[in-house]
Amino acid sequence: MNKPIDNAWIDDVRFDAGGLIPAIAQDAHTGVILMVAWMNAESLAETAATRRAVYWSRSRQRLWRKGEESGHQQIVHEIRLDCDGDVILLKVEQKGGIACHTGRESCFFRRLDDKAGDSSWTITDPVLKDPELIYK
Amino acid sequence: MNKPIDNAWIDDVRFDAGGLIPAIAQDAHTGVILMVAWMNAESLAETAATRRAVYWSRSRQRLWRKGEESGHQQIVHEIRLDCDGDVILLKVEQKGGIACHTGRESCFFRRLDDKAGDSSWTITDPVLKDPELIYK
Repeated sequence: MNKPIDNAWIDDVRFDAGGLIPAIAQDAHTGVILMVAWMNAESLAETAATRRAVYWSRSRQRLWRKGEESGHQQIVHEIRLDCDGDVILLKVEQKGGIACHTGRESCFFRRLDDKAGDSSWTITDPVLKDPELIYK
Repeated sequence: MNKPIDNAWIDDVRFDAGGLIPAIAQDAHTGVILMVAWMNAESLAETAATRRAVYWSRSRQRLWRKGEESGHQQIVHEIRLDCDGDVILLKVEQKGGIACHTGRESCFFRRLDDKAGDSSWTITDPVLKDPELIYK
């Protein structure tokens, strides 16, 4: 995490006080938003160099090469930065068609629905593969 | 900001230590990712109730009813929550076709390109309307 990053383009990226930036992974073909995770400068530099999504795992406090356990790598087609420089967008090809640790295509599988005046979250997307089989 | 929010569905939303959650606005028709902003519980509750995107402006420290100055409101078709409960996704109809304060459709108008071994950000999207005419 302390390796110097000598890429000038990284200077345009505004990491937060903890040295992190949120990164959205979007399916390059369908436009489906797959997930949001965090990156530090090292993970962003490695993502750009290898064209594979590499995040920073806040829970494990280490680089997280997406797919390292599940095989569900993300091949990076495009890296985009927003106007404020504080959000990254990756357009990716999702290996296995599953981004979420629950075995679903996308992490955004809950939709807020109104039922007789009460709102609640509805699970809209199917589990494509049992997580126990993904992380065995 | 201190109004009690009595919607049970909000209890499933994991706001950060500062009481905020990032929200992605995605064009409901084209899938284009328009912007990312922040919400607190009050802005999320108002978004759900009015079906208009309401964010929390960190710079101005107040509710930001998207389009209140620019007219570029976002009509909310869907509200989604990710698996960890810490990112919101809005599928919206973008009034005026412009989400970004720079006068572009999307805030993600910079793409990382490789030029003879050096990477740099390329502006790929046109300004659709002069910001001085938007915020007059």
